[in-house]
Amino acid sequence: MQPNTLNRSPLGRQHRLQAAKRNARVNYGQIFDKAIDRLHEEGRYRVFIDIMRNKGAFPNARCFHGHNGPKPITVWCSNDYLAMGQHPKVIEAMETALHDVGAGSGGTRNIGGNTHLHVELEHELADLHGKEGALLFTSGYVSNDATLSTLAKLLPGCIIFSDELNHASMIAGIRNAGCEKRVFRHNDMAHLEKLLAAEDIETPKVIAFESVYSMDGDVAPIHEICDLAEKYNALTYIDEVHAVGMYGKRGGGISERDEAAHRIDIIEGTLGKAFGVMGGYIAADTRVIDCIRSYAPGFIFTTSLSPVLAAGVLAAVKHLKGSSVERDAQQANAAALKAKMREAGLPVMDSVTHIVPLMVGDPVRAKKISDILLAEYGMYVQPINFPTVPRGTERLRFTPGPAHTEAMMDELTSALVEIWDRLDLELAKAA
Amino acid sequence: MQPNTLNRSPLGRQHRLQAAKRNARVNYGQIFDKAIDRLHEEGRYRVFIDIMRNKGAFPNARCFHGHNGPKPITVWCSNDYLAMGQHPKVIEAMETALHDVGAGSGGTRNIGGNTHLHVELEHELADLHGKEGALLFTSGYVSNDATLSTLAKLLPGCIIFSDELNHASMIAGIRNAGCEKRVFRHNDMAHLEKLLAAEDIETPKVIAFESVYSMDGDVAPIHEICDLAEKYNALTYIDEVHAVGMYGKRGGGISERDEAAHRIDIIEGTLGKAFGVMGGYIAADTRVIDCIRSYAPGFIFTTSLSPVLAAGVLAAVKHLKGSSVERDAQQANAAALKAKMREAGLPVMDSVTHIVPLMVGDPVRAKKISDILLAEYGMYVQPINFPTVPRGTERLRFTPGPAHTEAMMDELTSALVEIWDRLDLELAKAA
Repeated sequence: MQPNTLNRSPLGRQHRLQAAKRNARVNYGQIFDKAIDRLHEEGRYRVFIDIMRNKGAFPNARCFHGHNGPKPITVWCSNDYLAMGQHPKVIEAMETALHDVGAGSGGTRNIGGNTHLHVELEHELADLHGKEGALLFTSGYVSNDATLSTLAKLLPGCIIFSDELNHASMIAGIRNAGCEKRVFRHNDMAHLEKLLAAEDIETPKVIAFESVYSMDGDVAPIHEICDLAEKYNALTYIDEVHAVGMYGKRGGGISERDEAAHRIDIIEGTLGKAFGVMGGYIAADTRVIDCIRSYAPGFIFTTSLSPVLAAGVLAAVKHLKGSSVERDAQQANAAALKAKMREAGLPVMDSVTHIVPLMVGDPVRAKKISDILLAEYGMYVQPINFPTVPRGTERLRFTPGPAHTEAMMDELTSALVEIWDRLDLELAKAA
Repeated sequence: MQPNTLNRSPLGRQHRLQAAKRNARVNYGQIFDKAIDRLHEEGRYRVFIDIMRNKGAFPNARCFHGHNGPKPITVWCSNDYLAMGQHPKVIEAMETALHDVGAGSGGTRNIGGNTHLHVELEHELADLHGKEGALLFTSGYVSNDATLSTLAKLLPGCIIFSDELNHASMIAGIRNAGCEKRVFRHNDMAHLEKLLAAEDIETPKVIAFESVYSMDGDVAPIHEICDLAEKYNALTYIDEVHAVGMYGKRGGGISERDEAAHRIDIIEGTLGKAFGVMGGYIAADTRVIDCIRSYAPGFIFTTSLSPVLAAGVLAAVKHLKGSSVERDAQQANAAALKAKMREAGLPVMDSVTHIVPLMVGDPVRAKKISDILLAEYGMYVQPINFPTVPRGTERLRFTPGPAHTEAMMDELTSALVEIWDRLDLELAKAA
């Protein structure tokens, strides 16, 4: 047996010789080990908590982590913001599609994987944002990466103006475009204008930003950005993944709420958060959609969304277009939890949305609070570390939804106060 | 109402002025229109055929394209190669997960989206390839892009040696790595060795290749590549998306069939073809898995696979580990179809696998054959154009599976002979 390059076992003379030779060359294993060691040293090595949510009983779940058998927990960090992942209409639509069409699409959109459900869902999403067309991707990450990189390649000499807090997937798309970029300070219109004004008016420009910034819970000044886009003739690209389904009368996002959707060239969203399933999309004018559809490798060369998922999302989008019950309950619970935490003296960060972040400022401490919450209280909130947030701003991020109860919020707040006191006490002792 | 930059309507004086000013600046709409015009001119503008497969009756489907209501068709171009997308075990597992866990995972793997099903599936896939670990991605495309780009960033000065026919997703990963690359001629070991030998032995190297090349149906000489990798101390990365589930005693791919899996450092596969659902993965030693898990943005910052999909794939992988019935039937049908086409004088290309490609050599003619097959015969095979295959090698690509019957193959062959004659006749008349 000839082992692979990375992990040749030191058996026999020939292998020992190989190992000796290898030491004089590249030691791949050591490079990988060091990369992992760095994460442990910084206290930001990630441990995935092994759970199963209980459909029909969200936010309850089973936790398989460090226990003998599953233990009941309450999930506080799900991005299934409106609990649509257990909505009877969504479940029923998926079950129907599973038995009607089958498990997967069987191909790319162009080669056998374009089901009628994909076509219908794109019409529904285009309508949601008042656009001519929409295009599905396998994830929100892919929609940002594929669209931004392709857009910049189609526009000769394009410069992308990017908010400094944009999501990793937008940064990936901009980097993969290989074009020039200008990073403007977060939501800073004066800085954005200064950067726009510095460039030739004949240079194609794209301003890329988010509506809701999901780790702080603040919101972009969409109309001001559109004013600048018009003045400097730039295209506008908005990421609404933490807003679609949750803002606007029909769930069209902050751009609907602020009556700005018609001023945005490309609206990007996800099907995996408020819509409760999985996948991503853009909505825009027909020719933009046709260009991305025709030129983006990340769209062309990949198996399309399972028709089961497409059916579920279709039901979720349709439902949330007509119902504000979930949105209203989410907003009420987010406001209530923020108030309870503030009242209890916890360092809840400013947030004008459904996101409830508690600042910790240190990765080890953030993980410790999270570990105690899970082990002692059966409450699950993942610590948020670099690179998801800047170093020194590590935090806990709670996402109360319509299914969380007042009693759950009270218990959570009490638990946090107890742990905060305990750790401060430990810190005081250690000092 | 202020319209967006792309599509401002020419209403009112101010807008006319804006339009006049805009004409002196960047005309985005015109750039996009030209990009689409180029595709029409080359005859490779893609029209997606709108279908719904009929679970329980694959390869039958309904076609919504250009008809009043759905029309029954036979699908000849699905990558659900073994019809696992309708297998009762897969459907049952997905239905159970849907009712137990719900529609989506609700988060990234690190933040609330790591279900027990993901963990189990990774164990199952690691076992399938005899590796220590595995890592799930939302698609095969993303697994290639994320893994190759991250791998090269972790290895300082890394050079990737890439087969010239590698899939677009591998090319994306290599480009996005920003590292040096050397492209070797397809399956040409002398060329690969020449390129390897030209580099410093202390430079980290990765050889990236596929096992089954899906548009031609040929296979890589895995052992020879591994010999070179050992000689020049390179890591090996194999894309087995068109082989997993279909080759090897347990469906571990060509690397299992050729007893070479232990010599490969990273094996990449898909969950959307022979396993019938959606998603992608890599299998490798623990430290490689841990590095990609910890450093790849395309893994970290995206909602994890729906637990419904994970459950379906788990059932498919388990089933195909123990059953060769589907593999054997697929091979038998592929051999039969190739023989029938060859006998009928059709230009079937050399293929040593389940892929049955018919060379056409022109995008317009390929589309025409495909259109006639669908409209007149109810047989669906998508034409394969650039950029999926090189210009001048446009083709039709058939993927007979275990559910296609002898009668279907006979009908297909007769239809193709009739259409071939008809178009040659038309060409002769036009000449």
